[in-house]
This record gives sequence, structure tokens and C-alpha cells, in this order.
Amino acid sequence: MVSKSQIKLITSLSQKKYRVQHQLFVAEGVKTIQELLNSSFELFLLFTTKPFNSDAKTEILITEKELQKISFQKSPNQALAVFKIPEPKPVPNDGLILALDSIRDPGNLGTIIRLCDWFGVTDLVCSETTTDCYNPKVVQASMGSLARVNLHYLHLENFIKEAKMPVYGAFMEGENVYQSRLPERAILVMGNEANGITNALQAVIPHKITIPRFGAIQATESLNVATAAAVLLSEFKRSTTGR
Amino acid sequence: MVSKSQIKLITSLSQKKYRVQHQLFVAEGVKTIQELLNSSFELFLLFTTKPFNSDAKTEILITEKELQKISFQKSPNQALAVFKIPEPKPVPNDGLILALDSIRDPGNLGTIIRLCDWFGVTDLVCSETTTDCYNPKVVQASMGSLARVNLHYLHLENFIKEAKMPVYGAFMEGENVYQSRLPERAILVMGNEANGITNALQAVIPHKITIPRFGAIQATESLNVATAAAVLLSEFKRSTTGR
Repeated sequence: MVSKSQIKLITSLSQKKYRVQHQLFVAEGVKTIQELLNSSFELFLLFTTKPFNSDAKTEILITEKELQKISFQKSPNQALAVFKIPEPKPVPNDGLILALDSIRDPGNLGTIIRLCDWFGVTDLVCSETTTDCYNPKVVQASMGSLARVNLHYLHLENFIKEAKMPVYGAFMEGENVYQSRLPERAILVMGNEANGITNALQAVIPHKITIPRFGAIQATESLNVATAAAVLLSEFKRSTTGR
Repeated sequence: MVSKSQIKLITSLSQKKYRVQHQLFVAEGVKTIQELLNSSFELFLLFTTKPFNSDAKTEILITEKELQKISFQKSPNQALAVFKIPEPKPVPNDGLILALDSIRDPGNLGTIIRLCDWFGVTDLVCSETTTDCYNPKVVQASMGSLARVNLHYLHLENFIKEAKMPVYGAFMEGENVYQSRLPERAILVMGNEANGITNALQAVIPHKITIPRFGAIQATESLNVATAAAVLLSEFKRSTTGR
């Protein structure tokens, strides 16, 4: 059974201010919850309509109707869990780090977290203006990859200025990424969906790279930020690992 | 002013059967409409709240309230147009052709159309089970790239069997794409979001390629089909054009 206070708590977690206040967030679906349980994330509550194959002591069996009541999804998938938001960790000074400047769309952020997981990017740095990664839509779109990628929200301009690694940025006009010598240790900055990288940040990014357009030149369209991130992460990993 | 019969027609075009019956589809937003006007697409009706900077004779000025009434979007963007669905063209026997096996999500299809446009893939072949590209959500997500990519809906298995070009498919287990010698002339098949490429089709695809995973191996997650397409199109174009 779900208590009234639990319903109230869970419902409140759709809003960032309550996630910050309680230091909790919601994850839904068996697969995502399983991946978070298999990581360092700490479980706070687990509701499920079928016994969950886990050691979770806090597992609470509920009905489909009760799940419908607490779920943020149209078609809830068997289980809903509340996890503790992890303590912030320091950003490492090694490997490839992706940095996001004001990514607003939760679907894009979730897709980018999955990309980081796939390409072995363990740390994703976000400007304070980037969508909160514990937003239920981001958690859902990241499909469990949140379990393997450390997210850091910070003042991006200061972070870039103080960085001890080469800094690259994705621009519409920059050096052809296929012809660039990409290092193994680097920070790669991707900009906002509509406006790209903010002016203040542009000024402190020494290496401007671009994915060349192969299609008709008259077109004004750019790539979606998540697909551009896919191509650039692939290029960094391919060219620096010899795989 | 929008007449009652026009409202009825436009509303009906959210459904595939009426798009097929009338051979018409809806595009919204100034940018998308402008790109379609600048292409071989034939305009049927154009409604706009501000004079549209075009030669369209059928331009009809309407109020915001009228636009709200006919729009499929929550926040309509100035203009809504109805275009004729173009006559099917033959699929060329040259260049790189992307083939989609049962892509269901309109956002994914729209993103893939944008990718084709960017990477100069002029022809996108779709199984009959793939989402209709004239679905308003696909038109919106493709952001005008529909103007520069020819879509072909056909029996994919027969098409592949009769193809006169090398056929590649994206699989979870295949040859490392970074180590494959990719040809300039090829068909690249991408499978459904949840189930990948159907069994019958798998049997007729000689070249199975994969994007290697760089992250932790225990993870079960795959890449989203649109981001996987981004990486593979980038690899085909990069390695065959010398750019």
C-alpha cells in the first residue's frame, strides 16, 4: 500500500525545488530501477506490482491502480522507485569529459547521458542552466545510464577557464572534426539547442570543431544536439583509442 | 479566414487514411514551410497570421485564434500549410541509401530525416511498417529536411534481396564499424527501436556492422536508433569521401 504522505512526497518530486529539498528523485520501470540498484545509488523507496527480483528491503507491493496514482507516466511499467540524489563528486582531470551549455530538452539530456554511457564518458558536466538530470523525463530517457555517468552541475565558464585539459567546442563553423587531431584527455563543450554555445563561453574555448555538412549547401538546418554529440563522441573515441 | 470545410480537411490530415485519400499533408512553422516552398513540393493551402514573404498565391491571412483552431501544436508558430504528397520516385542505384525497418517513433524518424539531409543521403527507404513520414509529428521533427530527402515506402525484404549495391545492417554484434572498409555505394539498414532488424531481413543482410561500446561492459543498454544512425552515417561519409 502507498500511504498518503508517500503519494505527497512522490508527487512533489516532479518539481526541482522538492527534489533539492528532500535530496530524492523518482525512477520508473523495471530496467531503469534494476540498473540503479546495481550501482552506487542508494534506494529510498521501491513500489512494485510484482515481487521485484532484488534484495531491496524496502520493496512494497502495490496494485496497478496504486501505481497509476503515483506514476508520472501514461503507461506505468510495473515499478516506481525513489532514490537518494548522490553527493557531488570532484570532476576528474582525465579522460574525455562532455560539458553541456544550457541543454533544455529533457529528452536530449537523457539521450546524451546514454551516449556518455556507451562511449565510456564517465563524467558529464552541465551549466547551471541545463535541465536537471533528476527530472523524471530525463531519468526515463536516460534508461538506466544515469547509473554509470556522474553528473556535475557547476558554473561552466569558470570550470572551462580553470580546466587543466584541452577544451574543444562544437560550432557551426570550426575545424573539420574529421581532420582534427583529437586528444584522449579533453573537455568537449556542446551548446544549447537553439542558440549554441553562449558568447562568454565561446571566448574561452580555444579549439572550435565542426561536423562538415555533406548535403545541399543552401539548407540552414543544423544537427540536433544529441545526434551531433553522438558523432563527436564517436570521433574522439575512434581516433584516440585505435579501436 | 478559414472555412469550415478547410478546418475539416486539415483536422482529417492528422490521420494517415485521410492523407492517403487526399494525397495531402500538413506542415507548420515558418522555417519548415519556407524550406518546402523552396523545394519541388507543391503547395495546396497556406494560412498565416502575418504576410508570408513568398510568392504563394494561396496565402490566406488568419488570426491567432484561427491558427490555434487548425494547428496540431500546443504553441503554433505563425503559419500552417497543406502540401501535396509527391509522386513516388524510383530509388537510385547509387550513393549511400539508408533503409529503416519498422521505425515507430515519429521523433526518431524526423531526426533521421534531418541526419540524411546533413550527411547528403538523398534517399531514405522505409519498410511499410515504419511510421508515415507525413505524420504531422514527423514533419515537425524533420524541420524542413523533408524538402531535401526522398522517402520511399516499400517491401523492404524484397528491396534488399533485389538490391544491386552492397547491403550493410546495424547490429548489436557485428564487425567493428571503425575497422570495416565501407564502400561509397551502399544500403545501410537500421532496425526497430525495441527489436532491431527483423529475422527475415537479417538473413538477407551480408554485412553486419556494430558501433563498439566503450563504456562498462555489464550494461545492457543499446544506443537510440537516431544516435546510432548519426554515428554510422558519419562513418560511411567520413571514410568514403576523404573529408
